[in-house]
Amino acid sequence: MSETATPKVGTKTACLLVIGNEILSGRTQDANIRAVAVALGAAGIRLDEVRVIPDVAETIISTLNTCRAHFDMVLTTGGIGPTHDDITAPCVARAFGVPLERHDETFRLLEATFAPGTFNTARQRMAMLPKGSIPIPNDVSAAPGFSIGNVHVMAGVPRIMRAMLRSLVPTLPGGAPLAMASWHSDTLREGDLADALSAVQDEFPALDLGSYPYERPDGRRGVALVAKGFDSEQVRRAGARLRTVIEGLGAVPIEGEPPA
Amino acid sequence: MSETATPKVGTKTACLLVIGNEILSGRTQDANIRAVAVALGAAGIRLDEVRVIPDVAETIISTLNTCRAHFDMVLTTGGIGPTHDDITAPCVARAFGVPLERHDETFRLLEATFAPGTFNTARQRMAMLPKGSIPIPNDVSAAPGFSIGNVHVMAGVPRIMRAMLRSLVPTLPGGAPLAMASWHSDTLREGDLADALSAVQDEFPALDLGSYPYERPDGRRGVALVAKGFDSEQVRRAGARLRTVIEGLGAVPIEGEPPA
Repeated sequence: MSETATPKVGTKTACLLVIGNEILSGRTQDANIRAVAVALGAAGIRLDEVRVIPDVAETIISTLNTCRAHFDMVLTTGGIGPTHDDITAPCVARAFGVPLERHDETFRLLEATFAPGTFNTARQRMAMLPKGSIPIPNDVSAAPGFSIGNVHVMAGVPRIMRAMLRSLVPTLPGGAPLAMASWHSDTLREGDLADALSAVQDEFPALDLGSYPYERPDGRRGVALVAKGFDSEQVRRAGARLRTVIEGLGAVPIEGEPPA
Repeated sequence: MSETATPKVGTKTACLLVIGNEILSGRTQDANIRAVAVALGAAGIRLDEVRVIPDVAETIISTLNTCRAHFDMVLTTGGIGPTHDDITAPCVARAFGVPLERHDETFRLLEATFAPGTFNTARQRMAMLPKGSIPIPNDVSAAPGFSIGNVHVMAGVPRIMRAMLRSLVPTLPGGAPLAMASWHSDTLREGDLADALSAVQDEFPALDLGSYPYERPDGRRGVALVAKGFDSEQVRRAGARLRTVIEGLGAVPIEGEPPA
């Protein structure tokens, strides 16, 4: 975690750990990375890295410790259910060197959710949190995520993850939201505008300028130009320059992103 | 890269680096991780980690050097186009300590593709490869990916990436394909089967057993049980056991994955 007393706007950094063999085997298409990226950006936090790692305790622990030292915060998804491969909570406890203990409020919440006789040992495990954790509630499932230090642990099921993200993000130290300006043109190619785009990047070194080729369903191919950054006034000015880049090449600029 | 003389079946490991600010900002939904995971699994290679990293030279170089030492092979996507943020090739050259040089065959291929007068400096950059690289051809675009040592560099545009993957994968050292067996049931919950599933995992320690809750469009909720591994006979036997786990809980087992 950063030790600076006065956080700079838009410079808090985050790393997301996607914990789960099902992404690495190709069984499951990831649906969480983008949701986390968008929610953090809107809160003025820069997602600087994502790692997808398997359900292997030593890997989870060492990756957690590397990343929580390197980034201002770490978010994780996956591995907090009731089955044998759900090992995120004990791994976080080991990474922090604290015991896993029953969180009484969570235990009672879970107990009240399940039908009599079905709140078995496996389900009771979901109330075991690293000592000192603060639950991350969600309105979909009774089992919470949890925060400890700068690590925030969420479920892997996308609907539950998004509900936890809505609870979590307002509690994070952020800043001005990520601003974005984009223009596209159906007749441009990346190789035609590379020099002009590079010149705009030099004018706005604090922004992230990108060009993204696209193909419309009817086969027309073009390029989208995007300026992003945490200074909305600079982004606005860079967006105006992107428009002139397209016009300067004799093409028709269209505001915004091309239709998906 | 592993130095063992006799590679064990199914134990080659791979890491995928997804290079691109557009994934980290949430602008773009990743569509490459799963395609790479499936193609490697089919070739008997285990995808052990994915990292999504930004278009920052020092980050790309240090991540490449860490990962190519740790895994048998590293695949990358993104950053090989003609614009200022396409810096993967020079970063790979720096990571390997070799110069970037014009690859003549690629230069001629590109030159022949573009209309007279449009093969400008930006486009010529796509023929600059790290010294000693072998191009990865593709049937969509004239600009190739490339392999150097155990690092394999591909485009980020999904259609071009998949074409490169088709060229690349048959050249990689692999083994027996990843086998998978799955059963699901619309009336099960994860917490009901955790103990029984854990017992099956203990019977097959070399396999990866997972349970995945799902919800059908009509609201019915169930769980899919999946056994995966590189020993197809063991996977077949584990699959049969998963069926009996579901039956033992009084539910109806359905073979395969639930409909998406």
